Amino acid sequence: MTDTLSDTPVATSPQGKIMLVGIGPGSYAQMTHRACAAIAEADVVIGYVTYIKLVADLLEGKEVIRRGMTEELDRAVHALARARAGKKVALISSGDAGVYGMAGPTYEVLFQAGWTPDADVPVEIVPGTSAITACASLVGAPLTHDSCSISLSDLLTPWPVIARRLEAAAAADFVVALYNPKSGRRTGQIEQAQSLFLRHRLPQTPVAVVKSAYRRRQAIAFTTLDKMSDCDIGMLSTVLIGNSHTFVRDGLMVTPRGYANKYDLQGDGSARDGEKRGRSLSTGLLGWSANLHADFADGVGLAELAQRHRLPADYLEQVLSTPLTELAFHQGPGDEDA
Amino acid sequence: MTDTLSDTPVATSPQGKIMLVGIGPGSYAQMTHRACAAIAEADVVIGYVTYIKLVADLLEGKEVIRRGMTEELDRAVHALARARAGKKVALISSGDAGVYGMAGPTYEVLFQAGWTPDADVPVEIVPGTSAITACASLVGAPLTHDSCSISLSDLLTPWPVIARRLEAAAAADFVVALYNPKSGRRTGQIEQAQSLFLRHRLPQTPVAVVKSAYRRRQAIAFTTLDKMSDCDIGMLSTVLIGNSHTFVRDGLMVTPRGYANKYDLQGDGSARDGEKRGRSLSTGLLGWSANLHADFADGVGLAELAQRHRLPADYLEQVLSTPLTELAFHQGPGDEDA
Repeated sequence: MTDTLSDTPVATSPQGKIMLVGIGPGSYAQMTHRACAAIAEADVVIGYVTYIKLVADLLEGKEVIRRGMTEELDRAVHALARARAGKKVALISSGDAGVYGMAGPTYEVLFQAGWTPDADVPVEIVPGTSAITACASLVGAPLTHDSCSISLSDLLTPWPVIARRLEAAAAADFVVALYNPKSGRRTGQIEQAQSLFLRHRLPQTPVAVVKSAYRRRQAIAFTTLDKMSDCDIGMLSTVLIGNSHTFVRDGLMVTPRGYANKYDLQGDGSARDGEKRGRSLSTGLLGWSANLHADFADGVGLAELAQRHRLPADYLEQVLSTPLTELAFHQGPGDEDA
Repeated sequence: MTDTLSDTPVATSPQGKIMLVGIGPGSYAQMTHRACAAIAEADVVIGYVTYIKLVADLLEGKEVIRRGMTEELDRAVHALARARAGKKVALISSGDAGVYGMAGPTYEVLFQAGWTPDADVPVEIVPGTSAITACASLVGAPLTHDSCSISLSDLLTPWPVIARRLEAAAAADFVVALYNPKSGRRTGQIEQAQSLFLRHRLPQTPVAVVKSAYRRRQAIAFTTLDKMSDCDIGMLSTVLIGNSHTFVRDGLMVTPRGYANKYDLQGDGSARDGEKRGRSLSTGLLGWSANLHADFADGVGLAELAQRHRLPADYLEQVLSTPLTELAFHQGPGDEDA
């Protein structure tokens, strides 16, 4: 941080405000109306040089503060100073403003400067399409099931924290988006991620590497988990790793939602035996708990059940101590998908 | 599914296409330009009744096909039939089109109907702001660190799969967004999620419940993990659970990015002893690996190291078998945040 806030007057002008704007992946088409309007409304636009370039057409007549990559906190300090001086400030992030974006660092700086939402300049966060969904839209439908975003950057996060998350996400079969997968200096992390995933997923698990989504040099590559770290991956890439059901067909990466668990998709689309449209699966919470109770009553031990369901024994113990009537008590109307 | 595709001609008209449109949380301001243009361009708009209402102003002169919640596959079947007949079809999802949205089911239906990208109607996916980021923008900056999206609906997913993901996400300290947390009929899942999280997180972990983000009946409630399941939660709610560092201050939920790990934020903002701007933390991959090698050389056993770092022993064994020079080999230019 090169600037300090010590001499800045607090809330001298009621017009000033800070808008934390997620501009989406980078093209005008993929920006929200609100993101555009926020930049249009701004007197001052602050951002990383690359992102400033992406919105160059919207900047005429505005004060523009370009900052380097290592200067996030400095950007927030400037934003607060300008806003307190009565300016409308747009602090821009690519993707969403909150996902590894400027929203967090800005609030940290604001709190430290004694800012409070009621007695100081207002702050608005303008969400946008994050890299995970922007990249997914270009490769098919990989995010139809539960997913994680994990940054491989260890510039602010200790490696064991990152490694534990990779390990957990791999084991629990999440679709995973790796942000900041690799840089000129930081090349080992993607190899470590690959190793951790290969402990739980097949080598042929589909992987997509998307570079500069919706920007001029957009590039998409499909690969598999065992070849992932050999790909051309850089700071502008996002890596999408499929779950155990994800497949690639005709150049499209798709994670099934699970309709085949319930419906006969090869036949007339009717519900399978024991399944009912609009209701939980027979292996849903209630059905599964009932089976667990039955197995336990039949003498199957906790340790065996824990292994079978790959869940902690103490959690299963808790489920077994909950009467089924408590889980099945509520009988509201059907109100759900599928 | 009430319709079948058996009698539908394939690609009779080159004008037809399918656009899978994520309309964002629901307000016009939060839609992307492309999402709006795609709906404007469409001859036919297909969607769940609630989402059709959200874009009612954009539908004049268009054929509108409203469908209930249990009819996703039917929506896709209609979209393909209309597109093959030469119509431009917008199939709308709230949030992002790929995140638990229509993109996945549509590709599943298309593949089954013999569709291929080269020889049939084109498909475009229009991404949008997903519930996780839309809701986050209204409560502060909870997503500044790694996060997961988990759907609690067990209508297509067996409960043990969901439970394993909750357990893994809780243990690895992800910020978590729970989609479909509760419905009239399905009330036990949120309680189970709470139990699984309480095994790993403090009772006072911040939780935000956001209902109808950016819609008319928007409601935001802050609570804590131990009280989470007592909140007013429904099918229009998204639940955001903070990680172990997330805090609430002045009505804002913020997850720190980790600047305090590297910089003296209380002082002049300079890097802490042993840390360097633009470089990995001293506890990053390289520094951490070096310490691991040193501890092992000093006689600390694998089992002890595994426990200390909460990582699998076989992963640590692999790190120990990798020469540090291999991790440190690359010396590109600094090119990263922070």
